[in-house]
Amino acid sequence: MDLLTILFLIGITVEAMTGALAAGRRSMDLFGVMFVGCITALGGGTVRDIVLNAHPLTWIEHPPYISVTAVASLVTVYIFSPYMLRLRGFFLALDALGLSVFTVVGVKKAIFYGHDFSIAIFAGIITGIFGGVMRDILCDDIPLIFKSELYASVALVTGILYILLIKLMVPDPVAVIITLFFGFALRMLAICLHWNIPKFEYQN
Amino acid sequence: MDLLTILFLIGITVEAMTGALAAGRRSMDLFGVMFVGCITALGGGTVRDIVLNAHPLTWIEHPPYISVTAVASLVTVYIFSPYMLRLRGFFLALDALGLSVFTVVGVKKAIFYGHDFSIAIFAGIITGIFGGVMRDILCDDIPLIFKSELYASVALVTGILYILLIKLMVPDPVAVIITLFFGFALRMLAICLHWNIPKFEYQN
Amino acid sequence: MDLLTILFLIGITVEAMTGALAAGRRSMDLFGVMFVGCITALGGGTVRDIVLNAHPLTWIEHPPYISVTAVASLVTVYIFSPYMLRLRGFFLALDALGLSVFTVVGVKKAIFYGHDFSIAIFAGIITGIFGGVMRDILCDDIPLIFKSELYASVALVTGILYILLIKLMVPDPVAVIITLFFGFALRMLAICLHWNIPKFEYQN
Repeated sequence: MDLLTILFLIGITVEAMTGALAAGRRSMDLFGVMFVGCITALGGGTVRDIVLNAHPLTWIEHPPYISVTAVASLVTVYIFSPYMLRLRGFFLALDALGLSVFTVVGVKKAIFYGHDFSIAIFAGIITGIFGGVMRDILCDDIPLIFKSELYASVALVTGILYILLIKLMVPDPVAVIITLFFGFALRMLAICLHWNIPKFEYQN
Repeated sequence: MDLLTILFLIGITVEAMTGALAAGRRSMDLFGVMFVGCITALGGGTVRDIVLNAHPLTWIEHPPYISVTAVASLVTVYIFSPYMLRLRGFFLALDALGLSVFTVVGVKKAIFYGHDFSIAIFAGIITGIFGGVMRDILCDDIPLIFKSELYASVALVTGILYILLIKLMVPDPVAVIITLFFGFALRMLAICLHWNIPKFEYQN
Repeated sequence: MDLLTILFLIGITVEAMTGALAAGRRSMDLFGVMFVGCITALGGGTVRDIVLNAHPLTWIEHPPYISVTAVASLVTVYIFSPYMLRLRGFFLALDALGLSVFTVVGVKKAIFYGHDFSIAIFAGIITGIFGGVMRDILCDDIPLIFKSELYASVALVTGILYILLIKLMVPDPVAVIITLFFGFALRMLAICLHWNIPKFEYQN
């Protein structure tokens, strides 16, 4: 199992936990919690693969991914939720790592399927953010990523950086590590310093 | 036309009616009512087939299914809606039957396409519940299935039972009938006795 | 570049603008504005192509479409939004044209892939309205098209008219122009005269 796979497993675990917590806030039952957890974790990659026509989907090729995310959701509910506030910093850091990993995985998959760089960047963004978009739609919220500190913009910049490094002939493992580190740092800085890109307010 | 097809037609009809009623509560126009009815009835199978890459979709292979569900939606509006309260029990029973039928159809289709049993159970759940999820998203509600008595859990248990029976070499028609009866009875019991699985309430 | 392509480009530009304005009303950040703009413009065709299994998707085959819609969204925010009220009539007219163009494009694509006429009409409706449906789901509204003057019904009638003209052996360019003119006029009349199809109100 290579580094990216390990990071990917951390990523889906963490994303499932954010889904479980969001579902809990809406007092869904345990099945709802598991379902929202799975969709948050695997939804971005699912949309990417459907859009790229890259079958079989990741979780159909690797059915254990469903169990991993379902168990992560349940564990969040039963074990972690009381400590969530104290663990907040750790959790946000893992989530920032997950975002970068998902983006790189998405870009790599699109390139592997022979797509244009602009499509690959788009595929990276979809992988990074669409799970969270679906979580918020299922929980009847306006998708958080459109309002949160640079979340989606980090995916965009991360995707572009990875493509640039590849174009500059940087060997892939090095490019992956640089990109992950950069994406992670950018997101953490954005959270700590409350960076936001300008909002557009329009009144009828 | 075999038994499962007849039950499937009953299933999409009933699900279209639940969609039409939900749309009516939000005072959509007649087109909205038809559209939400069709999506509620055929949406679960559509998501399943897209995810499994099982083309053509059911309603593209059988275009009359669109007309059946559109007509069922309109009939609900014009003829049944005043009697809906009195017919509630009958309606819930048909819906419970529809849930079981959709689940079995979903599991069978995934097995037919050579998927793993865990994927097949997941496909059954998607078929059973995703139409309702889309109905509630379109009507701007939190999906009911995450809050209602065992709805999704019935799909899960029904799917597992069917797989078990098949693994035990029970002939398919017998397995189908046992599974449908069991899923139907479980859902009816859950409604009558107000069974719920534990809810997870999380406050920030 | 033929007439239909030019009109299609106008259509996605205008739809991106409606998406950007809706996102702005919810005070999303600039990335949210661009993302909702792109999905509003390209979402209907994406759903159609996924459902028809017509890969590659339009915007994957033509990556510049993403840039066109992203730029249109930004321009709307920075340049047009103060004049939006004064330009409202012009904007509604372009949107009506976009609706007709999208519908015709959808019908043509389904026929090209060898589908039944009923499926082709459905594909036209999906192309015409689903971008707007996704915009409203992302902005946490009940989809406007189910409540607005004949929006979806115009797509339905436009699709049927085009099929009829083709069946009557009218040459394709003539059929396209007649259909576009008719769909445009119908929508504009519906807006000016506040036509609505009956609403169905149902109370529990």
